Amino acid sequence: MTHRIAILGASGYTGAELVRLIAGHPNMEIVALSGERKAGQAMATVFPHLRHLNLPVLCRIDEIDFSGIDLCFCALPHKTSQQVISALPRNLKIVDLSADFRLRDPAEYEKWYGNAHSAVALQEEAVYGLTEFYRDEIRAARLVAGTGCNAATGQYALRPLVSAGVIDLDDIVLDLKCAVSGAGRSLKENLLHAELSEGCNPYAYGGTHRHLGEFDQEFSRLAGRPVRVRFTPHLIPANRGILATVYVRGDAGVIHETLRAAYEGEPFLQVLPFGEAPSTHHVRGSNFCHLGVAGDRIEGRAIVFAALDNLTKGSSGQALQNANLILGEEETAGLMMAPLFP
Amino acid sequence: MTHRIAILGASGYTGAELVRLIAGHPNMEIVALSGERKAGQAMATVFPHLRHLNLPVLCRIDEIDFSGIDLCFCALPHKTSQQVISALPRNLKIVDLSADFRLRDPAEYEKWYGNAHSAVALQEEAVYGLTEFYRDEIRAARLVAGTGCNAATGQYALRPLVSAGVIDLDDIVLDLKCAVSGAGRSLKENLLHAELSEGCNPYAYGGTHRHLGEFDQEFSRLAGRPVRVRFTPHLIPANRGILATVYVRGDAGVIHETLRAAYEGEPFLQVLPFGEAPSTHHVRGSNFCHLGVAGDRIEGRAIVFAALDNLTKGSSGQALQNANLILGEEETAGLMMAPLFP
Amino acid sequence: MTHRIAILGASGYTGAELVRLIAGHPNMEIVALSGERKAGQAMATVFPHLRHLNLPVLCRIDEIDFSGIDLCFCALPHKTSQQVISALPRNLKIVDLSADFRLRDPAEYEKWYGNAHSAVALQEEAVYGLTEFYRDEIRAARLVAGTGCNAATGQYALRPLVSAGVIDLDDIVLDLKCAVSGAGRSLKENLLHAELSEGCNPYAYGGTHRHLGEFDQEFSRLAGRPVRVRFTPHLIPANRGILATVYVRGDAGVIHETLRAAYEGEPFLQVLPFGEAPSTHHVRGSNFCHLGVAGDRIEGRAIVFAALDNLTKGSSGQALQNANLILGEEETAGLMMAPLFP
Amino acid sequence: MTHRIAILGASGYTGAELVRLIAGHPNMEIVALSGERKAGQAMATVFPHLRHLNLPVLCRIDEIDFSGIDLCFCALPHKTSQQVISALPRNLKIVDLSADFRLRDPAEYEKWYGNAHSAVALQEEAVYGLTEFYRDEIRAARLVAGTGCNAATGQYALRPLVSAGVIDLDDIVLDLKCAVSGAGRSLKENLLHAELSEGCNPYAYGGTHRHLGEFDQEFSRLAGRPVRVRFTPHLIPANRGILATVYVRGDAGVIHETLRAAYEGEPFLQVLPFGEAPSTHHVRGSNFCHLGVAGDRIEGRAIVFAALDNLTKGSSGQALQNANLILGEEETAGLMMAPLFP
Repeated sequence: MTHRIAILGASGYTGAELVRLIAGHPNMEIVALSGERKAGQAMATVFPHLRHLNLPVLCRIDEIDFSGIDLCFCALPHKTSQQVISALPRNLKIVDLSADFRLRDPAEYEKWYGNAHSAVALQEEAVYGLTEFYRDEIRAARLVAGTGCNAATGQYALRPLVSAGVIDLDDIVLDLKCAVSGAGRSLKENLLHAELSEGCNPYAYGGTHRHLGEFDQEFSRLAGRPVRVRFTPHLIPANRGILATVYVRGDAGVIHETLRAAYEGEPFLQVLPFGEAPSTHHVRGSNFCHLGVAGDRIEGRAIVFAALDNLTKGSSGQALQNANLILGEEETAGLMMAPLFP
Repeated sequence: MTHRIAILGASGYTGAELVRLIAGHPNMEIVALSGERKAGQAMATVFPHLRHLNLPVLCRIDEIDFSGIDLCFCALPHKTSQQVISALPRNLKIVDLSADFRLRDPAEYEKWYGNAHSAVALQEEAVYGLTEFYRDEIRAARLVAGTGCNAATGQYALRPLVSAGVIDLDDIVLDLKCAVSGAGRSLKENLLHAELSEGCNPYAYGGTHRHLGEFDQEFSRLAGRPVRVRFTPHLIPANRGILATVYVRGDAGVIHETLRAAYEGEPFLQVLPFGEAPSTHHVRGSNFCHLGVAGDRIEGRAIVFAALDNLTKGSSGQALQNANLILGEEETAGLMMAPLFP
Repeated sequence: MTHRIAILGASGYTGAELVRLIAGHPNMEIVALSGERKAGQAMATVFPHLRHLNLPVLCRIDEIDFSGIDLCFCALPHKTSQQVISALPRNLKIVDLSADFRLRDPAEYEKWYGNAHSAVALQEEAVYGLTEFYRDEIRAARLVAGTGCNAATGQYALRPLVSAGVIDLDDIVLDLKCAVSGAGRSLKENLLHAELSEGCNPYAYGGTHRHLGEFDQEFSRLAGRPVRVRFTPHLIPANRGILATVYVRGDAGVIHETLRAAYEGEPFLQVLPFGEAPSTHHVRGSNFCHLGVAGDRIEGRAIVFAALDNLTKGSSGQALQNANLILGEEETAGLMMAPLFP
Repeated sequence: MTHRIAILGASGYTGAELVRLIAGHPNMEIVALSGERKAGQAMATVFPHLRHLNLPVLCRIDEIDFSGIDLCFCALPHKTSQQVISALPRNLKIVDLSADFRLRDPAEYEKWYGNAHSAVALQEEAVYGLTEFYRDEIRAARLVAGTGCNAATGQYALRPLVSAGVIDLDDIVLDLKCAVSGAGRSLKENLLHAELSEGCNPYAYGGTHRHLGEFDQEFSRLAGRPVRVRFTPHLIPANRGILATVYVRGDAGVIHETLRAAYEGEPFLQVLPFGEAPSTHHVRGSNFCHLGVAGDRIEGRAIVFAALDNLTKGSSGQALQNANLILGEEETAGLMMAPLFP
């Protein structure tokens, strides 16, 4: 049986990535693609790399007949997403890629995003979309909230450690190196090639990045008490990929074994042998996350590394993985392509 | 039915690309991978991006039992390839990715490669592997010679025009912009990031590049008289992709229509609307070739553009396409993945 | 004696490059910097790499007292420049970096730029700023028009050959590989890192690029008859540098000797030994232009290569070189810094 | 008075960078350049970007007459350097760029470098070359040991804080993002463009990087008790630049004020306003180091950022700064060029 799929916000990078992935899915068909400002244009014009596909022309959301849609991906900007989803049919299955439904607490949402949430009931209904840790809830969900790409990377490195109590919860440092596509296809000076290539700089440092809201929510929930991490993202001159370098206190061997055991059997989470470190080069374009653990010369301190592709495992691949669960498909369907290297 | 596949020279980029592609093929299984200098190592060590696959350990060629192999890809260096293939079973189906069997004339081979050919009978037997133009011969072949990646790009731009006689055969200029993976995983100073990034330079210019042998052979054959093109490749700071800018004399509209008609129905060759130009960004990691034609303000002159991924359509994707034909599979099997952008 | 300098349009890349160069000039002092939209901001905010310099705050043009200015650089957008310069004091020495005064013929200007020229008298007065070929006129000029960066590169490769009549004037192909800073600090989708890095594409092809107006004007003047070249620029993933690959008909040895003799004694134009080719890597950040000539296997055809930094020799370095002439300074003052490699 | 300069190991990146800088120095003349494997070649062949300079041909060290040399830069590999310097005249002024004389304690040297030091007396004599903190000793020195480029970056961020006791010495994390030229012009697979571009990976992590020896020595000396930091370098796809992100415990405001006061009047160390962060883009090709301090949402924790160009301030620029002191020149002579951006 082929599922009929709509993608709202198909003119951005995560939208295009969804199209790329779904094109390789055995049981999905894209029947509607929206892009408000580019409505009426062919996807081949907006994204020439998709030219070989037979795709619907971009349309406005209000032109879509949702009665024939089995599942809808929302790749819209934050804040827009909650408005749009509020107006969609109440029984429509939705995987949202925005930040709008990641935080369960309306107060936390307002604190990090600066505005009151306009769809609190939906916010309550939404399931947090970190697949490997919310599988059962996602299977039963109508509305799944995709995680932040940085938030996913950090959680893959840390969740089992927080749960198992094998690290000091009061001294966690996440230093992330992030490719530029995470910022979307937006026209900002700092995203120009001339400004970005051949160098590196931090951004949203000092405890200000919004993905901290997700870290706080999830780690505190796991620990049963407040956990607050330090988190500094950096922009590197690359289009895809996030590398998390996580500094923790704990026994490196125990930490490695905890991750290994937690992710045994996970199709996409690959824990490297002890002492080895991953590279974003080796996950590009794929749904895999590579994880590594190393000790330090100072006893009781360790580093956990995690690498994934922000557009795939960090957003659109995750979204498809969740859609597979919702629709009763194989969780890995359309997602087992090997990374592209070099 | 699953075909049992061996890849000789699996520790180079084209070998790894074959593994990537075959991993997504419905009816192929890799049963042997050779790498003389890395024999005994896991592929996950040599190419960590393939870590999720269950692959044979790298071995020496003399360790492989070819009796159980249905088809063998040879991704070995030039000159080595002819020696190795000479020693393989005579009935083994082979797709060679080296330059050893591209030129039919031993004298031409010696002229361009500097040494006498040591397997002239095989050279005679080999079919030139530019799939779209040698389909029937390839289907019936035992030994197929993969084309040069630059040679493929230039031929996609020009073959229908040479055949149709719509351009001046004595004034053809091919200016190519080539990504660095075409040079392989070799330790050369000019391939270092510090030497290559952020700049551009020509190489093997002035009528010296070996792929000229292929252009001469094929274009002269099509035209029924000697055709010699001018060809200058340039190294650009990118890992994958070749863009050919081909300057010809002829009517741009006729040229566009000739290409369009010639490639109608071809699954991988996409001719853009008249006046549009392709970009290597939009074919990365895929088996597609995008082609464009534009006129000039000077009447009777035109530009033909072709863009493909040198590791995919330019070598390993082409090789798999040919293997599909040899083995009676769908020609497109394992090759329809969308390009990776951005 | 220290010359008092103003830079209009200091918030763009060519403006910033002027500041970088003038900071190393022994006899120039920057006394005014304009930037309409960033007026009131410190240069350290707009261009943090200039933070160590003691510079005037950005202001609006109408805030500048030009009576104390010895020379004014205009790094404003096309069309704006002619309006602004029209309003400046008639005796002010000006080096303009825009396209507004490059074409002598108002009809040609209108043809290429799409609007009638609003300052025809100034257009007549302006001297074309390709220093090595207009030295005497520049020394005596009040208003110098900086050349296009592509136009400069192509002319360095071709002018002596056109003058000497050693090439066929009816078959000249200029294929250029251009870094992205030539497009300025403008917010356009195709200039984003995610769209540009790791690939290559042509733009303004097919006889449409405005710098063709300069080629036509200059080559026709030299030849004493109309000369029209074919010219295709390509965007490469680099921030600085233009490589011109110029396909001509003529004797390669004669061509090399013609260039060598023409540029003997030129401080910035370096002709490589016969058969060698330049690279943009080796001129980055400098005012040098490296030139090379090679033959082809086809007799009577040759390639001329030219490489320069579009922001330095292609615009701001050229502008300073011209300013030196106007002000009676050493032509090379502030311009002899070595290229930055790697 | 012009000082006569020799550079040993001029065929590497730090050697070439010294040539670039000295070419702009008012009172230095390069009279000898060594390169054992490239002896007999012109520098223009080995480094075409230096083609405009009139330089001595590369020679073997034993061909140099040191009697006419005022100061010798040694840009040789580790271990080779101590052997070569041992054989040089005892009164020759030397600035060494290798790791051989950075560590004062022979046992520490052996621990980090794996071999016994073969020139212990020289090791004792050598002054550690972090200019701003060893000015007086350097002025009086005969032999100065250039610091590691990572070691310099980390120390600029931390030394005043360790001295002032304003941070917790037992919880310091240095996360560095390092451009590839720090690894030299060596033919290693991981330095190839195809392996490095478009991604990021850690290396020498887990307390194994040799620059830890310098951190231990210097911070422990300042603190008067053992200090051991955590330090993880990462390779980013860039040619020049190091960004240090340093996680400390302490009051962010006090930390910022401590750095600001410490570096007031320093020509090359620029402390940004509180809350701002530097970028490697803005120091490229220059001798400047930009520093920034930000607080965290968690009280008592702060981040210190430092950015410099590893080839300039991190090695060859530092070396020239030290040579200026030794020779009685202005400390900033030849070093005030602005960064190259973009």
